[in-house]
Amino acid sequence: MAAMTATQPSAPARSADPGAARAVLTQGAGPTAAAASPHVRLRPLPFAATVLSEEGELGRWQALNRSATLPHLVANLESSGALDNLRRVAGRHDGPFRGFNFADSDVHKSLEAIAWEAGRRPDGQDWEGFTRDVVELLAAAQDDDGYLDSHYQEPPAAPGESATRADRRWTDLRWGHELYVLGHLVQAAVARTRTTGRTDLLDVARRFADHAVRRFGPGGVDGYCGHPEVETALVELYRLTGERAYLDLAQRMVDARGSGLLGAGPFEPAYHQDHAPVRAVTEATGHAVRQLYLAAGVADLVAETGEQALLDALVRLWDSAQGTKAYVTGGLGARHKDESFGDAYELPPDRAYAETCAAIASLQWAWRMLLLTGEGRYADEMERTLHNAVAASTSVDGTHFFYSNPLQVRTGHDGSSEYSASTRLPWFACACCPPNLARLVASLHAYVATRDERGVQLHLYADGTVTLPADDGDVRLRVTSAYPWDGRVTVDVLEGDGELALRVPGWVLPGGAVLRVDGVELTVDVAAVHASGGYVRVAPGARRVELDLAMPPVAVRAHPRVDAVRGCVALRRGPVVFCLEQADLPAGVVLEDVRLAAGARLDVGPPDPAIGAPVTIEAEGVHVPAAAGMLAVVGAGEVPPAAGGAVGPDLGDPDAPLAPLRLRAVPYHRWANRDEGAMRVWVPVQGWAP
Amino acid sequence: MAAMTATQPSAPARSADPGAARAVLTQGAGPTAAAASPHVRLRPLPFAATVLSEEGELGRWQALNRSATLPHLVANLESSGALDNLRRVAGRHDGPFRGFNFADSDVHKSLEAIAWEAGRRPDGQDWEGFTRDVVELLAAAQDDDGYLDSHYQEPPAAPGESATRADRRWTDLRWGHELYVLGHLVQAAVARTRTTGRTDLLDVARRFADHAVRRFGPGGVDGYCGHPEVETALVELYRLTGERAYLDLAQRMVDARGSGLLGAGPFEPAYHQDHAPVRAVTEATGHAVRQLYLAAGVADLVAETGEQALLDALVRLWDSAQGTKAYVTGGLGARHKDESFGDAYELPPDRAYAETCAAIASLQWAWRMLLLTGEGRYADEMERTLHNAVAASTSVDGTHFFYSNPLQVRTGHDGSSEYSASTRLPWFACACCPPNLARLVASLHAYVATRDERGVQLHLYADGTVTLPADDGDVRLRVTSAYPWDGRVTVDVLEGDGELALRVPGWVLPGGAVLRVDGVELTVDVAAVHASGGYVRVAPGARRVELDLAMPPVAVRAHPRVDAVRGCVALRRGPVVFCLEQADLPAGVVLEDVRLAAGARLDVGPPDPAIGAPVTIEAEGVHVPAAAGMLAVVGAGEVPPAAGGAVGPDLGDPDAPLAPLRLRAVPYHRWANRDEGAMRVWVPVQGWAP
Repeated sequence: MAAMTATQPSAPARSADPGAARAVLTQGAGPTAAAASPHVRLRPLPFAATVLSEEGELGRWQALNRSATLPHLVANLESSGALDNLRRVAGRHDGPFRGFNFADSDVHKSLEAIAWEAGRRPDGQDWEGFTRDVVELLAAAQDDDGYLDSHYQEPPAAPGESATRADRRWTDLRWGHELYVLGHLVQAAVARTRTTGRTDLLDVARRFADHAVRRFGPGGVDGYCGHPEVETALVELYRLTGERAYLDLAQRMVDARGSGLLGAGPFEPAYHQDHAPVRAVTEATGHAVRQLYLAAGVADLVAETGEQALLDALVRLWDSAQGTKAYVTGGLGARHKDESFGDAYELPPDRAYAETCAAIASLQWAWRMLLLTGEGRYADEMERTLHNAVAASTSVDGTHFFYSNPLQVRTGHDGSSEYSASTRLPWFACACCPPNLARLVASLHAYVATRDERGVQLHLYADGTVTLPADDGDVRLRVTSAYPWDGRVTVDVLEGDGELALRVPGWVLPGGAVLRVDGVELTVDVAAVHASGGYVRVAPGARRVELDLAMPPVAVRAHPRVDAVRGCVALRRGPVVFCLEQADLPAGVVLEDVRLAAGARLDVGPPDPAIGAPVTIEAEGVHVPAAAGMLAVVGAGEVPPAAGGAVGPDLGDPDAPLAPLRLRAVPYHRWANRDEGAMRVWVPVQGWAP
Repeated sequence: MAAMTATQPSAPARSADPGAARAVLTQGAGPTAAAASPHVRLRPLPFAATVLSEEGELGRWQALNRSATLPHLVANLESSGALDNLRRVAGRHDGPFRGFNFADSDVHKSLEAIAWEAGRRPDGQDWEGFTRDVVELLAAAQDDDGYLDSHYQEPPAAPGESATRADRRWTDLRWGHELYVLGHLVQAAVARTRTTGRTDLLDVARRFADHAVRRFGPGGVDGYCGHPEVETALVELYRLTGERAYLDLAQRMVDARGSGLLGAGPFEPAYHQDHAPVRAVTEATGHAVRQLYLAAGVADLVAETGEQALLDALVRLWDSAQGTKAYVTGGLGARHKDESFGDAYELPPDRAYAETCAAIASLQWAWRMLLLTGEGRYADEMERTLHNAVAASTSVDGTHFFYSNPLQVRTGHDGSSEYSASTRLPWFACACCPPNLARLVASLHAYVATRDERGVQLHLYADGTVTLPADDGDVRLRVTSAYPWDGRVTVDVLEGDGELALRVPGWVLPGGAVLRVDGVELTVDVAAVHASGGYVRVAPGARRVELDLAMPPVAVRAHPRVDAVRGCVALRRGPVVFCLEQADLPAGVVLEDVRLAAGARLDVGPPDPAIGAPVTIEAEGVHVPAAAGMLAVVGAGEVPPAAGGAVGPDLGDPDAPLAPLRLRAVPYHRWANRDEGAMRVWVPVQGWAP
């Protein structure tokens, strides 16, 4: 709608690139069509190859996404004004732009979610009409030169109005989010093309992408987005189309990044990942989602180029993020301020930001690292993040969401901000998370398994089937499991003669894994498996493989430098982290005054269907009522002795008997599905001196 | 300079108020001329009554303020553009406005500091020429209707330019800070009038204040500032001038506050103290400095009106702020996000915001509560805040400052933001703190003592003299003390026959106070003194009073709900909190891996003159090197036993001997005067299970 910019480099020639032949290969692929990428160890399966049953945890989640979350998105795109913003540019709506300047991305992510769902369950495409209407709207709103971001476009000039209005496009790469919006448009178009074969949205997306190539590609201006995301999308568009210009643009943006091109502002350059060249970074820093999307995009690039320097940088980033800045839930980004990573070991449970989108981005990055390296530690992280940080964001009804995911909410917490809510909300002023969740969940089965020249690898355990068509190797597997609530995974090999690799998760304790192949029990040296990549490999020919992972409830402690949870343990069973909630305590007992009893047995408790918890954990605790007074002297002239100072004179009666109390812990990702109230993952242990 | 607004309520009539008679009384007063306020228990002394000697801690600080900080301010008002902003409005400078929209307040606070210094040391008014120039500049910049805020004023119209430019004044009470700027102008003018008798600045300030009375007083619009501060200033202007309209305006703003008048925005209403009527609040919340300045202003109002409902609200706020949200240093405002109070007991040492201005505001509020109630707990808080949170903000050279005052800085901390710096900076983009410090320190002696009908009360102990002129009661005291480094305070009553009340600080342990009156030792029941208001009272007639307060180094623990410092103690001696610094550790030992040994003796160590520390503390510690790995299982099927799980398998070698280590702690307020490095106030105790 806006006038074309005065000078335009000519459109890139469509290259006769060898990659073009690959476009066929990626038909029917999932979100990451790296099956033909030259530098991956593991190849993703076709999108339809894996089907999760609704009896399993992940399949159930996908069904909820379909029945509740997707309709909720469609309704909120309307009520939030995101669609009206586009109608406004198309001359069909009279009113101001509403929302943040990246509001279009809510539409695009929702279209992507719908497209994956259409591929997952092609039998009932309830939203095809909606999608076609939106695609038509996007095409109508698109500028003649391909640009498409309704925040920066102007409505059609009124009669008599000057047509020469200021062009606001591309005037603020730092905050503009225009390339971010392009990225999500591209991902939606890729999904729709792969799952339906329809190219209507792809035509729109390519026009915008080609516009970006002309502007920022070779011969154009140097530039990259203040919010990374377009990099991974451009690589995917290259994978779909074989058009080298998209890959080159992603490469160009990654190469230029960190040159300070985004300029100064109220935020530090690291916020925008503009503080250092990508190859030079040593620490996960800045805005967490920006950092993680960038890392995912760089991993995509490495899959195509094999550049070792970038891979090395990614491993350094990983070790920083996951080795010093990750919550036990897999949540990343400790700080509310700037939604950013904190210092190493700065992991407050109460002020954990742990944005839902950061958890999603973390999983996407981990998946790409897994494809690049084949190392199970990346799949371990996918599993942890999925079953905790990601899962916690959504209510049992599928229509309420957390933006940030704290590991502790105190009694009396002020949760009035959407960024520190203690109850899930139906929508947000900054609504990035709900549609991001939906697109992930609709495509979740794509992350379950991979293959290589030897056979198939199972990374995430979920009840379902894996079926590769004949030209893909004739494999049919039936996976039966109540994972993550039960550690037994049974794989029936209905067809196929390749090797079967099963991940032995990092949480499995020594002696905690038993493998049975066609009834023959094999010893699993857990430590050795972990040391050699994390998978047990079953030779070709087996028909039934059973992996039995012992799932005792365990108490874990954090690295001693994580000061914020000193003297506390988190309860975990399998990959699932548990928490205490005020709702499970008797009247008059405040959660902050409750501790676990040292040496107490951890019992598996009965399920709680009301909150969707098949498993609970029970243990003896104590109630230590605290008196008033912020400080107490516990040693005059000396540090308190090991056995002393348990309760200071200002803090309570040291001779008062500690009241025993039966505690119940529920899965962390199911918290806040009852009355609003206090919650904590890390629980103090009475009398424990670690 | 800007055109007068179209309609102006008529100027308020100068009332023949009884308060007018009091104007005389406040000549020569300090920052809080409440001596004649009808509802105070204690009366401030004349500003010149107390003289602190430079041998004492507080007097030395005042001397440093004079020799280093004040010249530094003057230089930075020039280089920051704050003076140019005013010259621009006066038509004397060509260039854009620079800085935040409250930049004028940097000028005003500096003028206030200079004015107090002129009263403190009238013998050498080095900055009188500077002040006169600035006052002349302010008068030149002032609009015809009295308005004066250079951010909103326009430079004089150029020849031929339209004179009808948009009036940007008062268009944004939420963010505009215009009344905040007025408040600081008034406080500067009050200080200058009281200490020099000159009314040039007062004339400017009253013109602006009268403008505000016309606009926001009875018959004007309802309004209050998004950043409270003008309330306390208006009461003080009333105290100086006797003009009731100023008091009434303050009352009107306090009464209206919390009605949501400031409107919605990206920040919660609590940020601006607009979430609830002042009389209804129950919790210290929102932006800490805003909350605390408002509380100080309300306390001033109560001193004049005696309104019990407001006093009750203040006590509730106090109990919330100091009873659940205060750091051991007296720092307030835990969160970087929104510079705000956190939830109760949310007190992370590493992410402590604890803004310098919040500590100053806390002291000012505490002082007013002390005047209202006579209760020693308020003076306790003044002392704690002064010697820790406030003192920490300034370097030993007096020209570098902290904006935020964390209680822990980790190894590898990214201190590149001025809001989370790990080294003091000479100036700030938001330069509120340095001139705020200067005005407090130049007037610090005004907070040392008060009087009532019975005699004199000593609240802060500092080497110096207290001399009341004959018509004020003929009192001359000589206070000799090395406080806070030594607990002995000797008061020689050179003249006067009133009662002498000496505070027994809250930190004094049972049996830790000895009182000698003219050589006769008296028993001090510390608990009883604390329970009855906090003061020992010496009957009239005594000539030498010695209070000897035992100052063993002590270990204090926090309330058990302060999860962030569980298992840790802070070292304190008298009112001074100590900390460990990386600079005191041997090479190869990282501060995060160091713990205090349980039961270790706390020794007073030698002074460290290089960092201005007359006292250090030494104790045995242990070095517990941590291995990699973020998590370790410490109990499979059970919570770890009390004696077990000390070092998990992933976290280090459990059989490795703990290396003993001699630790040295330095006064917290002297940290970061050596090489940049890690620091912590709260130190883990090895093997201690509180």
